[in-house]
Amino acid sequence: VDTRLDQQINFLVEIDKLKQILRQTYLIDGSRQENDAEHSWHLAMMAMVLHEYVPEKVDLCRVIQMVLVHDLVEIYAGDTFAYDAKAHEDKEKREQEAAGKLFSILPSKQGEKLRGLWEEFEAQDTPEAKFATALDRLQPLMHNYYNQGGTWKTHNVRKDKVMQRIEPIAEGAPVLAEYARHLVEESVKKGYLAE
Amino acid sequence: VDTRLDQQINFLVEIDKLKQILRQTYLIDGSRQENDAEHSWHLAMMAMVLHEYVPEKVDLCRVIQMVLVHDLVEIYAGDTFAYDAKAHEDKEKREQEAAGKLFSILPSKQGEKLRGLWEEFEAQDTPEAKFATALDRLQPLMHNYYNQGGTWKTHNVRKDKVMQRIEPIAEGAPVLAEYARHLVEESVKKGYLAE
Repeated sequence: VDTRLDQQINFLVEIDKLKQILRQTYLIDGSRQENDAEHSWHLAMMAMVLHEYVPEKVDLCRVIQMVLVHDLVEIYAGDTFAYDAKAHEDKEKREQEAAGKLFSILPSKQGEKLRGLWEEFEAQDTPEAKFATALDRLQPLMHNYYNQGGTWKTHNVRKDKVMQRIEPIAEGAPVLAEYARHLVEESVKKGYLAE
Repeated sequence: VDTRLDQQINFLVEIDKLKQILRQTYLIDGSRQENDAEHSWHLAMMAMVLHEYVPEKVDLCRVIQMVLVHDLVEIYAGDTFAYDAKAHEDKEKREQEAAGKLFSILPSKQGEKLRGLWEEFEAQDTPEAKFATALDRLQPLMHNYYNQGGTWKTHNVRKDKVMQRIEPIAEGAPVLAEYARHLVEESVKKGYLAE
């Protein structure tokens, strides 16, 4: 039988695979696609730097932990591209199964706690979850703006789709939503994004 | 003049470069070298899962934030390989300059706060900093064990050097130090690490 520490180490070894899950987003210098682990790190840094823009009081510590775990299920369920409607049909089912498989590697109480953070992110009922989603929507926009339209050009994404995608930012942090809309307008002006 | 939000965004864009700073450590599947951003994410996950092994009471939230920022200075100072004595001679000077350059992109109070976390990590005076270092020493050992001696073989690193490298783990979390020594012994037995 595995000891508690063995189970914890097994989990920490398994999640190394998140470094291999590629997103559609390119790094800001455009050199390669971003992976889920470095994306999660970047969101945690954004939470630390931008949390003052949440109008309500948020538990920063929980936001950080939430963004650190929010993509873990993609180790088994894969990354579902934001603009792929078909893949979104069974996304929830695939991710619930993945969560069951992944979090059960941990001692049960600890696994439930981490899964709880992911469930909270998915449910979008708390200010922490809404802020986490705001960051998750703002970050690729920032990347696509600074790498001159990378993903948008590769996948022929148009302005209305991006505007729809960034809508939830307003729920989490209105100031950041305004900034996001500004980036979209600038992207169109500069020819990074098609009208 | 930049607004506060502009300064914050400039910082968040600049630190994307951490994803390009390669460490000597290979991923657990051995496929490629690990970068500093995904390494920092992994340490934060380890802090969440393993903090029960710190004998004193630690502020988990500060440990997480500390490991998230602990390698940021390497954006300008580069990664200094653990077993490169020559490069360690001017490491502190290079990193202090890098910290000055990087953290001053942020609004000053916020930049000081983040720099403070890095300084705390470097000073190794608090249980939080000691635990962060314990994780920073355990993680590459875990990688080298599971990828069958990757970095050790590439750089002809021997057991005594690794034992020396993992010594600080005992300061942060004695149980993890015991586990680390066990991994070293197993690595020698299995031929991943030379005696």
